[in-house]
Amino acid sequence: MAFNKIDDNILQAIIAIVGNDSVITSRDDMERYSHDETEDLSYYPEVVVKPRSAKEISALLKLCNEHMIPVTPRGAGTGLSGGALSVMGGLLISMERFDQILNIDEQNLQATVEPGVITEVFMNAVAEKGLLYPVDPASKGSCFIGGNVSHGSGGPRVVKYGTIREYILNLEVVLPSGEIIWTGANTLKYASGYNLTQLMIGAEGTLGVITKIVTKLIPHPTNDALMLASFPSNESACAAVSAIFRAGIVPSAVEYMERKCFEWVKAYNGVQFDLKDEDAAFLLIEVDGTDNEVIFAECEKINQVLESFGCKDVLFADSAAKKAELWHIRRTIGESVKINSVYKKEDMVVPRATLPQLVKGIKEIGNKYGFDSVCFGHAGDGNLHLNIIQGSMSNADWNDKLNTGIAEIFELTVSLGGTISGEHGIGLVQKEFMPIKYTNVHFELWRGIKKVFDKNNILNPGKIF
Amino acid sequence: MAFNKIDDNILQAIIAIVGNDSVITSRDDMERYSHDETEDLSYYPEVVVKPRSAKEISALLKLCNEHMIPVTPRGAGTGLSGGALSVMGGLLISMERFDQILNIDEQNLQATVEPGVITEVFMNAVAEKGLLYPVDPASKGSCFIGGNVSHGSGGPRVVKYGTIREYILNLEVVLPSGEIIWTGANTLKYASGYNLTQLMIGAEGTLGVITKIVTKLIPHPTNDALMLASFPSNESACAAVSAIFRAGIVPSAVEYMERKCFEWVKAYNGVQFDLKDEDAAFLLIEVDGTDNEVIFAECEKINQVLESFGCKDVLFADSAAKKAELWHIRRTIGESVKINSVYKKEDMVVPRATLPQLVKGIKEIGNKYGFDSVCFGHAGDGNLHLNIIQGSMSNADWNDKLNTGIAEIFELTVSLGGTISGEHGIGLVQKEFMPIKYTNVHFELWRGIKKVFDKNNILNPGKIF
Repeated sequence: MAFNKIDDNILQAIIAIVGNDSVITSRDDMERYSHDETEDLSYYPEVVVKPRSAKEISALLKLCNEHMIPVTPRGAGTGLSGGALSVMGGLLISMERFDQILNIDEQNLQATVEPGVITEVFMNAVAEKGLLYPVDPASKGSCFIGGNVSHGSGGPRVVKYGTIREYILNLEVVLPSGEIIWTGANTLKYASGYNLTQLMIGAEGTLGVITKIVTKLIPHPTNDALMLASFPSNESACAAVSAIFRAGIVPSAVEYMERKCFEWVKAYNGVQFDLKDEDAAFLLIEVDGTDNEVIFAECEKINQVLESFGCKDVLFADSAAKKAELWHIRRTIGESVKINSVYKKEDMVVPRATLPQLVKGIKEIGNKYGFDSVCFGHAGDGNLHLNIIQGSMSNADWNDKLNTGIAEIFELTVSLGGTISGEHGIGLVQKEFMPIKYTNVHFELWRGIKKVFDKNNILNPGKIF
Repeated sequence: MAFNKIDDNILQAIIAIVGNDSVITSRDDMERYSHDETEDLSYYPEVVVKPRSAKEISALLKLCNEHMIPVTPRGAGTGLSGGALSVMGGLLISMERFDQILNIDEQNLQATVEPGVITEVFMNAVAEKGLLYPVDPASKGSCFIGGNVSHGSGGPRVVKYGTIREYILNLEVVLPSGEIIWTGANTLKYASGYNLTQLMIGAEGTLGVITKIVTKLIPHPTNDALMLASFPSNESACAAVSAIFRAGIVPSAVEYMERKCFEWVKAYNGVQFDLKDEDAAFLLIEVDGTDNEVIFAECEKINQVLESFGCKDVLFADSAAKKAELWHIRRTIGESVKINSVYKKEDMVVPRATLPQLVKGIKEIGNKYGFDSVCFGHAGDGNLHLNIIQGSMSNADWNDKLNTGIAEIFELTVSLGGTISGEHGIGLVQKEFMPIKYTNVHFELWRGIKKVFDKNNILNPGKIF
């Protein structure tokens, strides 16, 4: 089905719905809506709207459905797969005005929040009441919680506290037809029909526009310890991860960083860090709880495991400042690479114990094609963040052959039991690799589901499949 | 679309697929497949098959699709909503021969298990390796894990360890078309297209037949403590639940039982228990971890909370035998009622702190209609198990007016933010109440999804909606 352009009549109808002050049409003002954090993509919508209510979104979707105008819902634009880009033009709905925390229910340990609230703002608001919302992507200071839901985002603490799927209880959603529904109930358990809440999580805004989010909260841990362990090889660091869990400990974070991560953040983010020649890889390990003695006993046990994998040096962060510094290193790796090199990000996920094989394979494939790579990520979940760097690859090869190399990496990922994305989503940029993992049967089911929600395919077209 | 009967030609085709020894056609032998644990329902299939492989199931589904024969997949038949009953006749596929634990992967803390494995058998097998699969419904000694997945089953430990949705990573499924797919990947995180694994969980066998299950496992806690606290009223017991969490503690179980539960298990299950006049309600609270001192400190904190809600007496289970005895009381309430009275089971779920209102309302509605009730359940999750007992209701009223009373209870449930079922599913018996919570928009989405998977509606027809 062919889409139509937004003509003056439709523009007037859009203005009638949201008001003049909520509509952007100048190219300059639309610039910041034309990209996300995915490499150098740029797609301009025809019109940007900043609605204030589900009702306005409902009217917009009805209008666009009637006139076959593509619609792209957008959070903070911090995505890493191009999911929020208007690749077909049309209307971009920015959720930035849905920025209210509507309710923190301390009786039920639940909150109701609008999708345009910045994740860290929400985390801090519930922390003030002694509660934890543990889903904290590296971009937590700027991303919206609605985008997190739509992309199934994770973060370091998933390993202990579970994925975002465990924390999203209910969603208010505007369907492409304009109908507004609650997907489920505000309950911790749910066995009442196909779970539409779960279907919306990770659907990347292709099935409906999320307008309210009910989350589960848990008591905030009162104490934590953070340590940074160095290893003589990538393999030994990755192998230690799995052993920590087998020793009966579930840390609240286990982040892997290869040596190069430190080189990049030292060079480009002004981080002071004494990097020794023999440091080939690092694990950043956090343990939390309510009792320092228990935490220290667990750290001691972890220490023993680390030693048996050749760990030479463990740095305990003994102050809040030191902890913040170590987390800062971890959180700025992506940015350091992004600002300073031609790069491509991947976020494959594998069963935890196969990480050493994955990292080894990535390096071999890189050697074969001539690209360099910076590997880090949520090792406790088997979720690797891979930044591919142009290295010695020529521009021609980078443009022509890189994707062949990436396809080889995904073939390895899938052969290890893994899949394309752990938390960044498929969006635009991973679409072409999906057939490495999925068959026509999957694509037919997905397309069928899409059609049930969005018969004219107006909502975020061109994404996932 | 009208279904066909299984004629002799189709029977021969079925036998050709699975072999003579895997087909049951005599009414006597089919008796045990004609009911589950849902009250007194009885529906005979025309033919029962006990296939041995996904390939056989694939051939059976293709055959039935071609000939418009309804197919009902069945686990252990311990369901409480009629989900495994052949309400349209046709072919019943018993999964009882899918009884192998295929792999316990101690490196990745994952297991691959067939759906016909008894949940407790699986739990014990992983516990032997120091690992925990925490999803333990009351029927764990007899239910199949495949049924648990299909119904989104829970159990006491969900409150700490999360729902079954957090533990099911990947599923091998035979679609009604006969296609065999893996729904996802063996990974802890997943952001690669609509999540078909999550869609299968709780779909009650209407979208596909599950033939392999990959689960997440976690380190087994080494220590636990169990206490039984008595309260002067249902309201005070329920109110204490929410306060425990607000005090910053997440117990591994918080089970609520009203006084009558103890009366029933004493009378009918030979349980010895000293019930005092002032004991109106109880909480069974378990705390687990790796350190006894921490556990005892948490128990002490819980104790203080309980006292502030009028708790008079706390019984600490000081031996494994005593713990088993207390859990036995909890697990046999349903059975005690079932064997000794005309009854109807409900399993509504509400936000945790609204439980006192729910229980109070149920008693008031009972008084209005003349039925009695036994209330218990997973209070930490807001999941109430309600056994309605005929009481002073005449048979005529029981048959004619009970559902009006139940509808009132569900209206109250929904008004409190809850829904129809927390873990038993909708199946056959809750279908009529679904419109209390859900709109035509929900039903249309569900029917649309159903059609994507099962265009001829042959798989478990007549369930959920």
